[in-house]
Amino acid sequence: MKVDGKDMRPIWFEKESETVQVIDQRFLPHKLIIEDLNTVDDTIHAIREMYVRGAPLIGATGAFGVYVILVQENNKGGDNEYLVSECKRLKDARPTAVNLSWGVDRVMSVALNRDNYKARVKAALDEALKIVEEEVVNCRKIGEYGMSVIEEISKEKNGKPVNILTHCNAGWLACIEYGTATAPIYAAFDNNIDVHVWVDETRPLNQGSRLTAWELGKHGVPHTIITDNAGGHVMQHGMVDLVIVGTDRTTRAGDVANKIGTYLKALAAKDNNIPFYVALPSSTFDWEITDGLADIPIEERDPGEIRYVQGLCNGKIEKVLVPPEASKAANHAFDVTPARLVTGFITERGIVRAAEKDIMSLFPDKKK
Amino acid sequence: MKVDGKDMRPIWFEKESETVQVIDQRFLPHKLIIEDLNTVDDTIHAIREMYVRGAPLIGATGAFGVYVILVQENNKGGDNEYLVSECKRLKDARPTAVNLSWGVDRVMSVALNRDNYKARVKAALDEALKIVEEEVVNCRKIGEYGMSVIEEISKEKNGKPVNILTHCNAGWLACIEYGTATAPIYAAFDNNIDVHVWVDETRPLNQGSRLTAWELGKHGVPHTIITDNAGGHVMQHGMVDLVIVGTDRTTRAGDVANKIGTYLKALAAKDNNIPFYVALPSSTFDWEITDGLADIPIEERDPGEIRYVQGLCNGKIEKVLVPPEASKAANHAFDVTPARLVTGFITERGIVRAAEKDIMSLFPDKKK
Repeated sequence: MKVDGKDMRPIWFEKESETVQVIDQRFLPHKLIIEDLNTVDDTIHAIREMYVRGAPLIGATGAFGVYVILVQENNKGGDNEYLVSECKRLKDARPTAVNLSWGVDRVMSVALNRDNYKARVKAALDEALKIVEEEVVNCRKIGEYGMSVIEEISKEKNGKPVNILTHCNAGWLACIEYGTATAPIYAAFDNNIDVHVWVDETRPLNQGSRLTAWELGKHGVPHTIITDNAGGHVMQHGMVDLVIVGTDRTTRAGDVANKIGTYLKALAAKDNNIPFYVALPSSTFDWEITDGLADIPIEERDPGEIRYVQGLCNGKIEKVLVPPEASKAANHAFDVTPARLVTGFITERGIVRAAEKDIMSLFPDKKK
Repeated sequence: MKVDGKDMRPIWFEKESETVQVIDQRFLPHKLIIEDLNTVDDTIHAIREMYVRGAPLIGATGAFGVYVILVQENNKGGDNEYLVSECKRLKDARPTAVNLSWGVDRVMSVALNRDNYKARVKAALDEALKIVEEEVVNCRKIGEYGMSVIEEISKEKNGKPVNILTHCNAGWLACIEYGTATAPIYAAFDNNIDVHVWVDETRPLNQGSRLTAWELGKHGVPHTIITDNAGGHVMQHGMVDLVIVGTDRTTRAGDVANKIGTYLKALAAKDNNIPFYVALPSSTFDWEITDGLADIPIEERDPGEIRYVQGLCNGKIEKVLVPPEASKAANHAFDVTPARLVTGFITERGIVRAAEKDIMSLFPDKKK
């Protein structure tokens, strides 16, 4: 998408230097910093420390990570056992992210299919690039399908702005291009449908107020930041027409793991009869599990993410301690929204109700 | 309550120096700054700039303010007209705070009833102190009634810690002693019932992570700070036994206006069959209105409160800008939780279900 008129993605392969590069998203919106991923440890660090975040981008980073394992300085890229064990280490960087395992495994198995080291490296890079392009195509399709929902509301409102609430950042920064939750918004905006986005700030890491607001602003989409607390109030007062969020992992029955707080917004949407959509590429479905609450482990992250808030202070990026030094904090990173609260899924194959039967009819190839 | 072993309140009359003193709560939890209120302008400043906050404390500060008007250096305390006009100026410090007018008017009318200047000063001070003690008694009774709810859960859990979630700060910092939502918690803790408190950070002003956590910590009550987003998740996973919040205004039918985000927690409590109580002195009921969503105007505050976060940075209190400079924010300060989501009210007269009939049976003197 555009940043100050220039096309940009959150990860890319820089051909001249043969380097995988990423935006270090931790310093957005105040500083746009680009980093090289030269080693598997760089890659693990970038995933764990959230230079990169969001399911599809984590998947793509994992995919490129296999290439990085093969070419890194101390490479033992001809050694299958080494490759498999380094790939395992890479996959462990964020255990909740199903796309990470998926991206790593896909490129790894392609690489393992080549005996020749050079062919192995080339195959890994090609496969990683292919994954990236698949994500882009998926997001574009999600945008097209999702736009129809916005268009319909726009017609009902006689062209008055459609108010869409989103949580966290399921934008192009998370998904390479268009985003998932934002793809329908960008598509609608680019097709001259009047939209306005309520951006949840999304504590503790403020991916909404830092990243989604930055993305939307750079693309020119009207938006307003609200606290995570405010979503219920704006819904009660008719100020929200539609909720669209992303997901990190969704069960075959339609239970949705997404950024902590999503469940609360789904409850409020239900209580106010507001459609609540989840946008996702089908790779985010976990076809092996049904019950999200029982079967999706929820990552607990560093409480420091809650205790310290990062922002700009006198031109420098600083962190301030908010609570008392002595108080503990707990940082549950995701929650699970039961399928009963979800209106539908916007996927690259179309829109489907949040029920196993419907999901399986759209993805018959995934039937057990 | 205790602060480092010493009894403390957010406002008091220092007998030796004959001075009204307050905690400047803006710098908690990092700095405990105490200020003298020597003039009416000091008092107005402390109210307007939120050195003091919370309905009961604002009322008490207004009450002491009348005494300050009478004794301040340039006193014209024998002059009725002067007293009335200065009291009006004091009441205008926060025009929406009902308790402020109430506290000022009550002390002013007592003072105006005395001809003798000395008697006037004494009567004003006595009345202000009486208001303070009334608040303290109300909170103590709320604590006693509310403790029974905690005690019952504690028995059901065979003495395992009772996990209580609270939002914002309805503690002694807002209410002089015990607090409202916190009163049952302090009472239970002081009676050796095992409790643990989930403290919502309460964006945008972080009254939970800054003030409630500080209060609980200083009194030794086990607590853990969570983001406002996390309440639903901890409820889904059986980690919450009870929710207790305060309120700024509650209708005779039981609709509850409280800090933004309360409604979302009430929805989650309902969805997980967790009791959701609202603790309040009966002065917080607005007997004139029934429908909270229609009849309670919601204050929109400065968006800067969302955009900037205050905390400690290198030993200094600083503010950091979180979102892009160019992004707008909207700061709805309260929301309304419909009575259907409230299990009961904990008042100084006892506990009552959240329904007009039940509320009126506890307060028959308020029948229309």
